Amino acid sequence: MPTLRIALAQVNSTVGDIGGNAEAIRRWSREAARAGAHLVAFPEMMLTGYPIEDLVFRNSFVAESRQALHDLAAALVGDGLGELAVVVGYVDADGPAHTSSDAVAGSGRRDASALLYGGEVVATYFKHHLPNYGVFDEDRYFEPGGALTVVRLGEVDVALTVCEDIWQAGGPFTAARRAGAGLVVNINASPYELNKDDVRLPLVQRRAAEAGATVAYVNAVGGQDELVFDGDSMIVSRDGELLARAGQFTEGLLVHDLDLPAADAVPNPEGSTDAVAPRVEESIADEMEISRVSVVGFRTDISDSSAKGGIAERIADEAEVWAALVLGLRDYVNKNRFRSVILGLSGGIDSAVVAAIAVDALGPDRVVGVSMPSGYSSEHSRDDAAELAKRTGVDYRTEPIQPMVDAFLANMSLSGVTVENLQARVRGVILMALSNQEGHLVLTTGNKSELAVGYSTLYGDSVGGFNPLKDVPKTMVWKLARWRNAQVNAPIPAPIPENSITKPPSAELRPDQKDSDSLPDYELLDPIIKGYVDHDMGRAELVDAGNDPALVDRVLRMIDLAEYKRRQSAPGTKISGKAFGRDRRLPITNLFREGEKAV
Amino acid sequence: MPTLRIALAQVNSTVGDIGGNAEAIRRWSREAARAGAHLVAFPEMMLTGYPIEDLVFRNSFVAESRQALHDLAAALVGDGLGELAVVVGYVDADGPAHTSSDAVAGSGRRDASALLYGGEVVATYFKHHLPNYGVFDEDRYFEPGGALTVVRLGEVDVALTVCEDIWQAGGPFTAARRAGAGLVVNINASPYELNKDDVRLPLVQRRAAEAGATVAYVNAVGGQDELVFDGDSMIVSRDGELLARAGQFTEGLLVHDLDLPAADAVPNPEGSTDAVAPRVEESIADEMEISRVSVVGFRTDISDSSAKGGIAERIADEAEVWAALVLGLRDYVNKNRFRSVILGLSGGIDSAVVAAIAVDALGPDRVVGVSMPSGYSSEHSRDDAAELAKRTGVDYRTEPIQPMVDAFLANMSLSGVTVENLQARVRGVILMALSNQEGHLVLTTGNKSELAVGYSTLYGDSVGGFNPLKDVPKTMVWKLARWRNAQVNAPIPAPIPENSITKPPSAELRPDQKDSDSLPDYELLDPIIKGYVDHDMGRAELVDAGNDPALVDRVLRMIDLAEYKRRQSAPGTKISGKAFGRDRRLPITNLFREGEKAV
Repeated sequence: MPTLRIALAQVNSTVGDIGGNAEAIRRWSREAARAGAHLVAFPEMMLTGYPIEDLVFRNSFVAESRQALHDLAAALVGDGLGELAVVVGYVDADGPAHTSSDAVAGSGRRDASALLYGGEVVATYFKHHLPNYGVFDEDRYFEPGGALTVVRLGEVDVALTVCEDIWQAGGPFTAARRAGAGLVVNINASPYELNKDDVRLPLVQRRAAEAGATVAYVNAVGGQDELVFDGDSMIVSRDGELLARAGQFTEGLLVHDLDLPAADAVPNPEGSTDAVAPRVEESIADEMEISRVSVVGFRTDISDSSAKGGIAERIADEAEVWAALVLGLRDYVNKNRFRSVILGLSGGIDSAVVAAIAVDALGPDRVVGVSMPSGYSSEHSRDDAAELAKRTGVDYRTEPIQPMVDAFLANMSLSGVTVENLQARVRGVILMALSNQEGHLVLTTGNKSELAVGYSTLYGDSVGGFNPLKDVPKTMVWKLARWRNAQVNAPIPAPIPENSITKPPSAELRPDQKDSDSLPDYELLDPIIKGYVDHDMGRAELVDAGNDPALVDRVLRMIDLAEYKRRQSAPGTKISGKAFGRDRRLPITNLFREGEKAV
Repeated sequence: MPTLRIALAQVNSTVGDIGGNAEAIRRWSREAARAGAHLVAFPEMMLTGYPIEDLVFRNSFVAESRQALHDLAAALVGDGLGELAVVVGYVDADGPAHTSSDAVAGSGRRDASALLYGGEVVATYFKHHLPNYGVFDEDRYFEPGGALTVVRLGEVDVALTVCEDIWQAGGPFTAARRAGAGLVVNINASPYELNKDDVRLPLVQRRAAEAGATVAYVNAVGGQDELVFDGDSMIVSRDGELLARAGQFTEGLLVHDLDLPAADAVPNPEGSTDAVAPRVEESIADEMEISRVSVVGFRTDISDSSAKGGIAERIADEAEVWAALVLGLRDYVNKNRFRSVILGLSGGIDSAVVAAIAVDALGPDRVVGVSMPSGYSSEHSRDDAAELAKRTGVDYRTEPIQPMVDAFLANMSLSGVTVENLQARVRGVILMALSNQEGHLVLTTGNKSELAVGYSTLYGDSVGGFNPLKDVPKTMVWKLARWRNAQVNAPIPAPIPENSITKPPSAELRPDQKDSDSLPDYELLDPIIKGYVDHDMGRAELVDAGNDPALVDRVLRMIDLAEYKRRQSAPGTKISGKAFGRDRRLPITNLFREGEKAV
């Protein structure tokens, strides 16, 4: 059996930064060659970043992607890497990119994978299965490919596939079996969701059985707006054995020697009596053509001792979410080239956790915390905010809001909840003024539970460019705080004051205010939010699930009414199956009712 | 030839208000019966409103739609309308609506048309062509139907189709010819775009030729969040003659007598030597099944003199846009049950035009205008704001901002553009305080040109729940102002002070500031915005089109940088091919650059 040394480049690219991404491909390809790899595979759309959304309709952008791919092939030869096979995702278009300004949506654009070798683009493959659910809109953007590309590298037939191709039975993996491929390379930009890594391994195993081939699954890592790609790249043999697996949320090369069947030795699938015969879940007709390419003179010498990628251990849920939130924030800040972030520190749990995430993501020198006490702020709140600043080492300032609030109150006739909102808005104005004056990105700190029911002030505490807790329910905020404080080996141990974790939550916008004056207990609230938002359950199903009927009615009404506020909210890292934002789309009209209004 | 009296109900429905929409169907059905109609057709998804977006994933909502359809059939009999054939759009699902909480996206949901008669749902049809471009995401939401439904009413075969079915060659209209249909009823929720009415008539004519049948096209009218449906319902004969056409932006019944071929008399399309043989643009295989239903005992007596729907005249571009903006705002306010709106009146053209739109939409008693002068506000600006209030009769108040601005300046060290933004934000806080205190919806007034290049203050002048000018370029704002002032027969003549139209635009945030200090001339700016935003043109194409290269570079940079601000902006009525919002989706990350920030 020939041995192929494969390197999976689990790396970070940036949407729109084609030049920077091409540089990264060259850098990691050098690393792969240094490790003796014959083939290195980069994630889906590595060259352009993913998802590029409506940039795909800009012909100049598509043309740039195509040109950059050819330039990259040449540059790799210049780097002495002409004999390394490089699989890389990019965006393509049929023929030259259209020059017409009235492009038909999706027409002719391809989510593509190319194999570069010897200065040439020797093979291309166009993604066959296009996801169009959740955060994905690929029917809007791409035409599906109809042919599987199989490249002969030395004695091994390697099939190229892209991301969603692995999530659906039939199509490319069935065709790969028919083609007798020994290895299927599947390049991905698969966004993180809590526990998604539990789904991926069995999925890759099913497809390996379907193809009757080893599957190399490489995923991107990094944050892009609301999405975080978590890596979790892996290699699974045709009989379902996990051969190697990369860690989550970290860049790196997974290098592994694969003993693969020589192309002529692959059993004929039609007459196969193989023990690992495919179990295709659905009887989907495999109508894909097979396009074959041979790379002449490809050599698969192994010059050093064998390479084993190893199997990285899975991490606990809280560690996984924390890592996602840290990476999501870090990449949002750095890719958008902000030097620093600023946030209000109230002494409460939400702002304390956001500060801890920011410090882990950026270091304390890039984080500014501002205490903005009012007449209603308790002494302990100010102490807790100061204590957090002391523990984390962030730049800490105090800007009392009362003089500004008083100026409004002296000149207008305001009362009740309007005065509560006024205080939150004055704080928003202060943070934005500091942002404009000094160049910080403002972080907002409302958790998913608050956002869901609209327990926030529009243009007040919701002010900010990014919200790390946007998809984190309040009950999970507490869990994360306790988990983070228990990490004794972290650079900053126990960043969050115990009192911020244990005291009852309060907005402190009127005397003795508590969240529980306006909201049900978070232990009762969060399951209803999860059912209604994440699982589209209706009233009857929520009641059947054991929630109190009156509480369900009250909470559903709050969630509907808050739709407009959420529409105006900052992006934030997605960690659940259905985050507010990209993967949940609702009309606004008729959700407000008379006498109820967006505050 | 039998005569069928058809009524096209060009009416307004509200998303989510199934009960209210069912009432409207009963009310308009009574009108249709009173006019002697045999068949009345309502728009696409009349029963649920359109677009329902992710509500389609809520099983309880789909179940409610299905139940309401059956209840409606019974209620129509109760109203004495059992002998009227009623065609109505609704949302359906295969079999009973799923009860699983983890619904696969789009799975089994149908954009459906039903024919009600004699208390029964006698026929249903599922939309075949699903649009998935621009503002449409129907591949996310629906499964396409595979069969054309043909209902025999008396001697006439009537085919049911839905919206996008008419925008694509092949499919249902080709099948309708094969089925020998005499009439194709096409129900629509087709959003307004400037000059779209010029496209619709030739389109309906092409399909009438393709089907070899008369086509009755009925469109919704009304505003739903960013979309406005403009009506423009029409009937076109099989030889392409426009028989009747409704006006735009108004509710009403278009009642017309159609002489249609008896079902058995329809020429066999295969052997046809007909002069109106179909000219199908593409050789699309017609693989649709045909499902036939007969309504027994259907009577097509005509008891009174013949009905002619007439052909409404098309209106001028400015009148069309004005009507769209007025209807879009009125429906947003009323469907969301706000009693009144409030906006800042600066004396400038944008706020003056928004006030005039609001007064036309709601009447002066429901509009509050607030002058918020600062030390930099000129005397003429205050005069122009007061003059507008006097001409329109809106509730007018003055809230000077200097005391509040001074409170911030006394307590913080702020300078330059930060102080400019501060003034805009204090105005935002004032408007939101009045909104909270008195219950008004805040209108924001930034035009499309400003929004495009980010010439606004985040959480400042961009504060508000709805923006009538969101999709109106500045050069068109001036045109609209002049057009509106020339409408001498309007209830309020010449609402906009001449000085607001003629003076050079200024934000008045520092002494002697002019828009032209920061922006190119709007006559040069707007074509670049149109090319880059509406037509996805790149730099090279924009330069080829005659724009100054340095100016193109500058403007493209501004537009890219403003993406985040636009993401945070209020909804507003769409009038162009590509409005900011639903039909334009771009990543944020990597659009900012170091030292540049969202202000």
